Amino acid sequence: MTIMIKEPIAQRWPTVFATISCVLFLAIVFASPLFAADADRDLMNRAAAIFGPLPASMPSPDNPITPEKVKLGSMLFWEPRISSDGVVSCAKCHPLGLSAADGLKKALGNHCKENPRNSPTIFNAAAQISAHWIGNRTGVEDQAKQALIGPPSFGMPSYESVEKILKSMPGYVTLFRAAFPKDEDPVTVDNFARAIGAFERTLMTPSSFDDFMKGRNAALNEHQKRGLRAFLDTGCMTCHSSPYLGGQMYQKFGVFQPYGNLTKSQPVDEGRFAVTKNEADKYVFKVPILRNVAATPPYFHDGSVDKLEDAVMIMAKLQLARDLSKEQAADITAFLGSLTGAIPETAVKVPLLPPAD
Amino acid sequence: MTIMIKEPIAQRWPTVFATISCVLFLAIVFASPLFAADADRDLMNRAAAIFGPLPASMPSPDNPITPEKVKLGSMLFWEPRISSDGVVSCAKCHPLGLSAADGLKKALGNHCKENPRNSPTIFNAAAQISAHWIGNRTGVEDQAKQALIGPPSFGMPSYESVEKILKSMPGYVTLFRAAFPKDEDPVTVDNFARAIGAFERTLMTPSSFDDFMKGRNAALNEHQKRGLRAFLDTGCMTCHSSPYLGGQMYQKFGVFQPYGNLTKSQPVDEGRFAVTKNEADKYVFKVPILRNVAATPPYFHDGSVDKLEDAVMIMAKLQLARDLSKEQAADITAFLGSLTGAIPETAVKVPLLPPAD
Repeated sequence: MTIMIKEPIAQRWPTVFATISCVLFLAIVFASPLFAADADRDLMNRAAAIFGPLPASMPSPDNPITPEKVKLGSMLFWEPRISSDGVVSCAKCHPLGLSAADGLKKALGNHCKENPRNSPTIFNAAAQISAHWIGNRTGVEDQAKQALIGPPSFGMPSYESVEKILKSMPGYVTLFRAAFPKDEDPVTVDNFARAIGAFERTLMTPSSFDDFMKGRNAALNEHQKRGLRAFLDTGCMTCHSSPYLGGQMYQKFGVFQPYGNLTKSQPVDEGRFAVTKNEADKYVFKVPILRNVAATPPYFHDGSVDKLEDAVMIMAKLQLARDLSKEQAADITAFLGSLTGAIPETAVKVPLLPPAD
Repeated sequence: MTIMIKEPIAQRWPTVFATISCVLFLAIVFASPLFAADADRDLMNRAAAIFGPLPASMPSPDNPITPEKVKLGSMLFWEPRISSDGVVSCAKCHPLGLSAADGLKKALGNHCKENPRNSPTIFNAAAQISAHWIGNRTGVEDQAKQALIGPPSFGMPSYESVEKILKSMPGYVTLFRAAFPKDEDPVTVDNFARAIGAFERTLMTPSSFDDFMKGRNAALNEHQKRGLRAFLDTGCMTCHSSPYLGGQMYQKFGVFQPYGNLTKSQPVDEGRFAVTKNEADKYVFKVPILRNVAATPPYFHDGSVDKLEDAVMIMAKLQLARDLSKEQAADITAFLGSLTGAIPETAVKVPLLPPAD
């Protein structure tokens, strides 16, 4: 009986196999959108868990944001008359149309003086642990204030000289008074810094990546989703963390080999060592925020690399000892494109500045 | 009888005189608002007849204005990546927040090179007979195109080099194609010039002076009305004609004496003579538009005078041999303040520029 039973089954093998294959094939064909949706949902959840949602606004405990401060700050952002050559405003090195970075290797300040490092975008910049590539400014207010007398930036001889110019324009006196109503003498560089800081804290740039993390699957295309997966699988988010994808820590640039090997940087910048004089801080820089990165070439602290795809490959090699394929680098680059946002509402309109008296 | 009649009348003279005086005095006191309103209405009508109303739009027969051209032009206006140092855009010498002039004596172009003359505002500029102080550009399109290769402005080596950069950015190729749909090869510097020109032709700045000419008496205060009267009585509108108050003719700067006597210009610029080599054109310049003049110091082709009140006194002396009192100059300056308009709707928002490929 056992033989009787065995034989017909053995004879039916081709048919059984064909049937199973057919069912599996149809199952795969018809269920693939569901599988894909599942995979996308997993990616969404994974990204949302790793980065977290972009907050509705930036915290500003030491410099409460008021509409009056933001209005004044948005005007001072465009103001060139407080620079030594009458040309430098915040907007010079942070042109809003180029996502608030200037597209140069290194910024050019008053009298075309070259700055030591590349201008980062000011979009989302207030969310960082510090300002400048080497963290030698405590925050955006400190950066704004010190820029006024920075020899390669505004280049003014003193804070008093800035205050004198601002006080000479009645329009500004009124605006400072409105923004700092409790101050007896409101036109000061500290209040200049507070107004700029309040303005900068409004410069958040939600993008299609946020829509994706919130569940809108179509917000990223397949190229970008592959890139996001590769970004996470490669380990980029270890440093490019938080909803801003960076700005939260310092890291040695060139963990596995000197960065100059691949960036061809001349000279090689020792980074945060200049601030702390601590040997461990040699070649250490603040991890930059990746929001708007596709719109803000060239790359790295010295702008030594022009193309984002090249920068991605170099980073994987230097920081993670990973050799990305051209396709992986292109995918990650496509994903990074989903981090470009619009010019924020508080910045997009050019304000008419007070006339000279 | 003649004597009889004469005597009582002669005796009554003091009474008659007092009565007439009293009636006249009361008439003046009570009717003065009416007289004033009449005077204001006369001033309105006089100004409207002399300058004419600001048209609703600028004519543009050779370069029809389309929304696509204006959109492209508004982006190219902000574009620094087509300059030899990557810093110069139209917006550099025409910062919108300063009413589209840069506040410098002479404009600074690529690599901080000084331009030969002061940057005029581009607001309303397309309404002029020509572009540049000495009229060496036929119009705004010609100015925009030639600026690209102007050694002290954008400083690009050739038109081809500009076209190559624009063509390298897919976003611009799409925008040029939309703006010039009939062109096989739309990304050209001529189309660059047309787009900028279309954008500039939208940059009109109606102001409170227009409201006054339209009949809103309160649009000018008494100081400004006195200034308008002084402006007309002094004869300024002979050259500063049309609804733009200038831009319609060339004139010798220094009719009654060399302008350098009062402006202290160093060196003295021979003006339009450089263009025509005609002796009669020595020291001849285009009469500048006075709209937004209070917001666009310093003054004259070389920015040699800082204060508008000083410029007003110098002009009256040089061009009309009139010595204005301090009060008259202050009045005229107050009137000129009524010519400052808002940043036009098409220019006030900063556009996000196409990313590099």
